[in-house]
Amino acid sequence: MKSQMLPTIFIMTLALSVCGVYSGKVLVFPIDGSHWINMNILIKELYSRGHTVTVFRSSGSWYIKESSPHYNSITVEDVAGGFDEDFLKMLISRIIQIQADGKSSWKRLQVEWELMKLGPVMTQMEINVLAKLLDDHKLMQSLRDAKYDLVLADPVGASGGIIAHYLNLPLVFNVRWTVHSEGHFAIAPSPMSYVPMPMFELADKMSFLERVSNVFFFAFYEFQAQFLIRPLWATFTNKYFGPDVDYFQLIQGADIWLMRVDFVFEFPRPTMPNVVYMGGFQCKPAKPLPQDLEDFVQSSGEHGVVIMSLGTLVSELPRRVVEEMAAAFAQLPQKVIMRYTGEKPSTLGNNTLLVEWLPQNDLLGHSKTRAFVAHGGTNGVQEAIYHGVPILGVPLMFDQPDNLSRMRAKGAAKVMDIFSVNRDTFLQALQEVLHEPFYRENMQRLSRLHRDQPMQPLDRALFWIEFVMRNKGAAHLRTESYKMPWYSYHSVDVILFLLAVLATFMASFVFGIKFLCTKVCCKHKSKLE
Amino acid sequence: MKSQMLPTIFIMTLALSVCGVYSGKVLVFPIDGSHWINMNILIKELYSRGHTVTVFRSSGSWYIKESSPHYNSITVEDVAGGFDEDFLKMLISRIIQIQADGKSSWKRLQVEWELMKLGPVMTQMEINVLAKLLDDHKLMQSLRDAKYDLVLADPVGASGGIIAHYLNLPLVFNVRWTVHSEGHFAIAPSPMSYVPMPMFELADKMSFLERVSNVFFFAFYEFQAQFLIRPLWATFTNKYFGPDVDYFQLIQGADIWLMRVDFVFEFPRPTMPNVVYMGGFQCKPAKPLPQDLEDFVQSSGEHGVVIMSLGTLVSELPRRVVEEMAAAFAQLPQKVIMRYTGEKPSTLGNNTLLVEWLPQNDLLGHSKTRAFVAHGGTNGVQEAIYHGVPILGVPLMFDQPDNLSRMRAKGAAKVMDIFSVNRDTFLQALQEVLHEPFYRENMQRLSRLHRDQPMQPLDRALFWIEFVMRNKGAAHLRTESYKMPWYSYHSVDVILFLLAVLATFMASFVFGIKFLCTKVCCKHKSKLE
Repeated sequence: MKSQMLPTIFIMTLALSVCGVYSGKVLVFPIDGSHWINMNILIKELYSRGHTVTVFRSSGSWYIKESSPHYNSITVEDVAGGFDEDFLKMLISRIIQIQADGKSSWKRLQVEWELMKLGPVMTQMEINVLAKLLDDHKLMQSLRDAKYDLVLADPVGASGGIIAHYLNLPLVFNVRWTVHSEGHFAIAPSPMSYVPMPMFELADKMSFLERVSNVFFFAFYEFQAQFLIRPLWATFTNKYFGPDVDYFQLIQGADIWLMRVDFVFEFPRPTMPNVVYMGGFQCKPAKPLPQDLEDFVQSSGEHGVVIMSLGTLVSELPRRVVEEMAAAFAQLPQKVIMRYTGEKPSTLGNNTLLVEWLPQNDLLGHSKTRAFVAHGGTNGVQEAIYHGVPILGVPLMFDQPDNLSRMRAKGAAKVMDIFSVNRDTFLQALQEVLHEPFYRENMQRLSRLHRDQPMQPLDRALFWIEFVMRNKGAAHLRTESYKMPWYSYHSVDVILFLLAVLATFMASFVFGIKFLCTKVCCKHKSKLE
Repeated sequence: MKSQMLPTIFIMTLALSVCGVYSGKVLVFPIDGSHWINMNILIKELYSRGHTVTVFRSSGSWYIKESSPHYNSITVEDVAGGFDEDFLKMLISRIIQIQADGKSSWKRLQVEWELMKLGPVMTQMEINVLAKLLDDHKLMQSLRDAKYDLVLADPVGASGGIIAHYLNLPLVFNVRWTVHSEGHFAIAPSPMSYVPMPMFELADKMSFLERVSNVFFFAFYEFQAQFLIRPLWATFTNKYFGPDVDYFQLIQGADIWLMRVDFVFEFPRPTMPNVVYMGGFQCKPAKPLPQDLEDFVQSSGEHGVVIMSLGTLVSELPRRVVEEMAAAFAQLPQKVIMRYTGEKPSTLGNNTLLVEWLPQNDLLGHSKTRAFVAHGGTNGVQEAIYHGVPILGVPLMFDQPDNLSRMRAKGAAKVMDIFSVNRDTFLQALQEVLHEPFYRENMQRLSRLHRDQPMQPLDRALFWIEFVMRNKGAAHLRTESYKMPWYSYHSVDVILFLLAVLATFMASFVFGIKFLCTKVCCKHKSKLE
């Protein structure tokens, strides 16, 4: 093959990057916790390309530091959604408690019901915070004076969209979830027959009953959005922006949706021209391990190592579960690196290294790594795909069951219910993932596909952020169909009209025939008389 | 801005292009005429990257040469859809004749009706050719023996899809139209409320009556596809591939759709993960003009030049129209370069150069060019966008009215009915396009947006062709929703089921209440007795 590829590729990109006229001012509305880790990658990259970044943070933020070499910050009270650490911890404990009680459909409905009731409560909290922000005229004036080029926001919070509208600025989302659902559901057609509702561990090929529950839960959440949440927002937008502004339309009107998935991870589904896929943008080649960790890994010999990391929530796990897992690990010929912050399990084997934190990406990219025991957070799953390491998944909550069910559907993970796990079932599952070539082969296929892209996901994301700054938006990529009333969007008015025309036509026809018959009959009768 | 962009960009692409293991064998099923010009660009690029290309051509081909330095060819009788030059010329004359008679809705319905009746005739012609091909066991064996990696086809003909299925090869479409409609309609959801049916000059924002006609014509063509064309194909696929193979599914199952549009040209609409946009992939910077043409252009001074090219069909135009246009040109201070192959118009002015062929791209890219009088073929419109030249459009047929109505909706073109044109109206329109900054500014905005891409469209197309060869398909980007029966795809079965459950529930409730009432009443009665 001749390598004539580069001379013609990306000349424009090169020109744009070298002439350097696009040094912009970006106002960022992040979400705290693991979402911030993702947002911070974009921020660092924006900084390294010469843009100025200002981050809106809450005074009670866990992860988002007030000062950083990469950004300035504006600290206000409780901007990140309005719900604080205590509230979130309470929510997480409650969900874990319900799940630990059993996994019946009834329990499931109970969780959904709790979440549904929580929706309006959280919305109202957020509205209160936003009202306080917009009423702070000094702050708003300072934001206007700063003349930002762009708002970059995580739409799990509404602040970014609202403030972008207030300041009349282009809006880019760094998104997987919106306040209400998975990002795509806000703007792309989502046929319920093959697009699974998030959170229900469904795949794109569903049985009849799965399709029934998909439609049912879609209706359930539509009900929540339309009847419980929309009225709350309507009162707010009416007060601050007048009657013509609809909150949902503000969110749907974002210029670019940088989606934190790709179709190696996600099931194929309809999408829109202003959705840019940057799944795995945080992944990078492994760096060498610290010497002591490298020595431990090397000591595993031909058996290799198993990595276990259940994220920041692992301390909430029932003690029994951790004991059973450690007991299973103890029976493996592999070495195990287990991230755990609680009390040392009594069943811990000699082959298991307990650590409070681990360099996950570097370990997953190590040639000795054989399997990854994971809770299924997006970052971990994406890193496992990038490095081609098969997963034994023990999901806890939120998007974790869904993330892992995608890997299971693609043959790259085995998934267990964490609350019913015991040392025997866990050991058996571990051995399956370690020894059945199926899992590793499938994960490595996903890894090859993920890496086979014309452009690195992070570069693609930055290109489109800069595009929006250069061009003051991306209106040509965005339909405005979301501004139509639902009956027009779904052509209900047109179909009723066409049916009415058809009915009139048929009625006239029948009436005509009847009329003719009567005439003929009358004639016939009068002739007979 | 720091230029850290390139080090991280495209390292993988570079690696893939340099290691050169993807030298593949591509079997191409093109469509003759202007479509071939597009396909040939891909073929030349494939050749230059070291792939071997074999082109299926008809013995009576107009454009596709039997021998070329860039490809081998297999010549068979009438492979390009089965309809020959005479048939197409007859069709074109008939459409021009109907249009010249007037542009009423009734006339329009007449054209559509003629085309609808033609559909099954053309399908049957194509089926006959395909049957002959598949029955040619020697040819089929030779195709099998050649061990191609990929079929690249223009889906205006069905041969590519059928032969790819027969040979069990991955399939990439170079597409704007399929045999039945615009490419997107075959695989992406197309809400009729904001996705205009092709051929009706509708935009993405429609009035109620426009939406009615959009739905009406959608139903009209669905009727044709489902009831007139599907049965013909069913007989064919049943004979050659058995009862489980559906022709429409074969087409929908293509791995990648290289779409010859982008969203600078097209209205934003839902799309699918396996659609790759390569609109304008044929565009390139202007080369210097031949000296005599350059002298003519320079002689225009500050007024600049107007380019007129109405494509290959211009000789079919009524004589009167050409005379009127030339008369209008004669009154301009600009110089005019007019492509025309018929007898010299008697009204031709001194400022107008009549040519049989012109280097369109080089002229459109010339700094003296002020306006482009065009029939609205896709190639010309894309080149005008690339070079930022505003258009005065006089569409003739096929996709031309639609192409131009897109430019009109974006403020970059004025469009006239070619059959009712006279020297005054034409001159007035020309002057408007030349002197209202609106048109030029909008077209130059489109040009900036079109050029502001992270990757050249042609490179993107080639990346995905090579991707499919490397990975033996792109199944992970393709939904298989098209395999569902329509009632499942649209969740009709699920909705009926849920309604039945609801009805049962309500009936039980009503029955229960009734039963209780009766009991209470009876008790009450018996007490009273």
